[in-house]
Amino acid sequence: MREVHTTVNNIPMADKKPTEIASLGEFGLIDHLTDSFSVRNASTLRGVGDDAAVIAAGADEVTLCTTDLLLEGVDFDLTYFPLKHLGYKAVVVAVSDLLAMNGRPEQLLVSLGVSSKISVEALDDLYAGIRFACEEMEVDLVGGDTKASVTGLAIHVTALGRARKEEVVYRGGAKLHDLICITGNLGAAYMGLQLLEREKRVLRGVKDPEPEFKGNEYLLQRYLKPAARKDIVELLAEEKIVPTSMIDLSDGLASDLLQICKASKCGARIYLDRIPIARQTTAFAEEIHTDPVVAALNGGEDYELLFTVPLALQERVMRMGGVDVIGHITAENTGAYLVTPDGGEIRLKAQGFRDKE
Amino acid sequence: MREVHTTVNNIPMADKKPTEIASLGEFGLIDHLTDSFSVRNASTLRGVGDDAAVIAAGADEVTLCTTDLLLEGVDFDLTYFPLKHLGYKAVVVAVSDLLAMNGRPEQLLVSLGVSSKISVEALDDLYAGIRFACEEMEVDLVGGDTKASVTGLAIHVTALGRARKEEVVYRGGAKLHDLICITGNLGAAYMGLQLLEREKRVLRGVKDPEPEFKGNEYLLQRYLKPAARKDIVELLAEEKIVPTSMIDLSDGLASDLLQICKASKCGARIYLDRIPIARQTTAFAEEIHTDPVVAALNGGEDYELLFTVPLALQERVMRMGGVDVIGHITAENTGAYLVTPDGGEIRLKAQGFRDKE
Repeated sequence: MREVHTTVNNIPMADKKPTEIASLGEFGLIDHLTDSFSVRNASTLRGVGDDAAVIAAGADEVTLCTTDLLLEGVDFDLTYFPLKHLGYKAVVVAVSDLLAMNGRPEQLLVSLGVSSKISVEALDDLYAGIRFACEEMEVDLVGGDTKASVTGLAIHVTALGRARKEEVVYRGGAKLHDLICITGNLGAAYMGLQLLEREKRVLRGVKDPEPEFKGNEYLLQRYLKPAARKDIVELLAEEKIVPTSMIDLSDGLASDLLQICKASKCGARIYLDRIPIARQTTAFAEEIHTDPVVAALNGGEDYELLFTVPLALQERVMRMGGVDVIGHITAENTGAYLVTPDGGEIRLKAQGFRDKE
Repeated sequence: MREVHTTVNNIPMADKKPTEIASLGEFGLIDHLTDSFSVRNASTLRGVGDDAAVIAAGADEVTLCTTDLLLEGVDFDLTYFPLKHLGYKAVVVAVSDLLAMNGRPEQLLVSLGVSSKISVEALDDLYAGIRFACEEMEVDLVGGDTKASVTGLAIHVTALGRARKEEVVYRGGAKLHDLICITGNLGAAYMGLQLLEREKRVLRGVKDPEPEFKGNEYLLQRYLKPAARKDIVELLAEEKIVPTSMIDLSDGLASDLLQICKASKCGARIYLDRIPIARQTTAFAEEIHTDPVVAALNGGEDYELLFTVPLALQERVMRMGGVDVIGHITAENTGAYLVTPDGGEIRLKAQGFRDKE
């Protein structure tokens, strides 16, 4: 059927072969689609391009807002992702973006597209996970939209948070010689996913399958029930540290550090032997003949925080606990590199396939 | 594969037949899922249950937030919904919820799940519609999330707005003897959809189909490019009218008025011969042997505003222009009825299948 022409001016389709979305890449696509939008409202302090949008709220405070879409078959596989965990993780993914702005998460809106194969009991499980995460992170569920889907399960989360205007941390504030800090450990979530995928392959077609996870519970938990680091944002406030830049690690250390370098117009050196990797991650990586550092750099979904602070704050950062200094910010023209123990330098490349918003 | 037990307590599935979602109905499902959530943050002024969530922002103002999910095959059919119109309408659907709270729309976040069949040029069209709507309604695009979908197109919109705290209009404030007012006319969007469905049926299998829309352009526009009544919210402010209750007409007059009655604990009488219906709606309804009043009551997607004002404001409301008084609020125990010209009373029933958030 031809395009309907009403009183709206339809942009005529160019008479050429359509361009595949993959050709632009995910970040390129967002830039392409949003470049031509201008900002009109004085309350819009920051739009597209950071972990969350920043909107004026009163004289001293701002509202932070972020949205994430989780799609069945893309972001999760219901054959091994328990719905309760999925609900929990959906909240974490969104709340983590607010924490990465140094914000206090406060409200949540959850919209679901639900296929007929999903029962009320299954949704109860999903919401039990959402409720558990809301309680843990002291966030209020304030709205949403639920409708039938003709395809798979779609979960959309909008998270709202609050911060004092001068304490919002953007990606673009890292300065020369700043320390690059990281919370927790990296690569475990990716290994958890590899474990689940392996068991799924091995047990395909088996009736009443009994997957073997013994000894790897930690990896599973890191993938299925990652933590949002609200504790770190609270510790930063206690130590009166406002990082110069911050991002949450959803795409992997390499991709996310490059986002900071791009926004801050700087380079970086991180040291391979400083990257925190859990014992269980290393053990399972060996078992499946993978390099755990690659998992840390490119695996993603760790939802730890990556931030930079001035050199002078090193002692205060170390006092916080649970934070490792893994490198420092360099001049933009020196690029971003991983330094190996023998002094070799490997250029960091973005490998994430997930949108950073 | 069995459920993975990590350190999260999984709620055991009850050992009984799963409950189908349809058995609860859409409103029932939302109540069921959200009943057990409690509110923790002082900034949460209103959560689930109105057109938008209301969040404190400074001393005198509030932030309004609403989300809507539009799914291919459920909310739109790409065989006849031009992408530019779809982008426009996605914004209208969300912005309309803010207007229904008497709010000023200011920011927008758009997330897309995009299947591989959609080209960059198609997304350009979608975003051209979004941009057009943003310009018209003076809203800033401030974020989103774009990812590949293995199924159809999913569009998720979060809209943020602002209002003075004492000027927010909820659904629950209608008082006995208040006038029931309506903007524009009803049922046209539903007739536009019927027209498109008819042409799709007629032209199925035809090469280079040429659908016949002559004379019905108005109906198509009302369905494909509905207006959000920002003008009405501005006129209300000019006339210094703060309605006692308000809702946007997305599910149809019957269902939406019943939402006001439920929230305000009141009844209503509306008069059949006062319901504004456009000439084109009546004409096409006759052509397809349908009752235009049924389309007005149950069709939905008109995105007009339904509001109540004290009797004393009748003159000021009439001075606004573009508003019809169609009835009045009665005591709760008298129910909600449509009064026919011969004095008969027909009980109003909710027919909408769409979520009201």
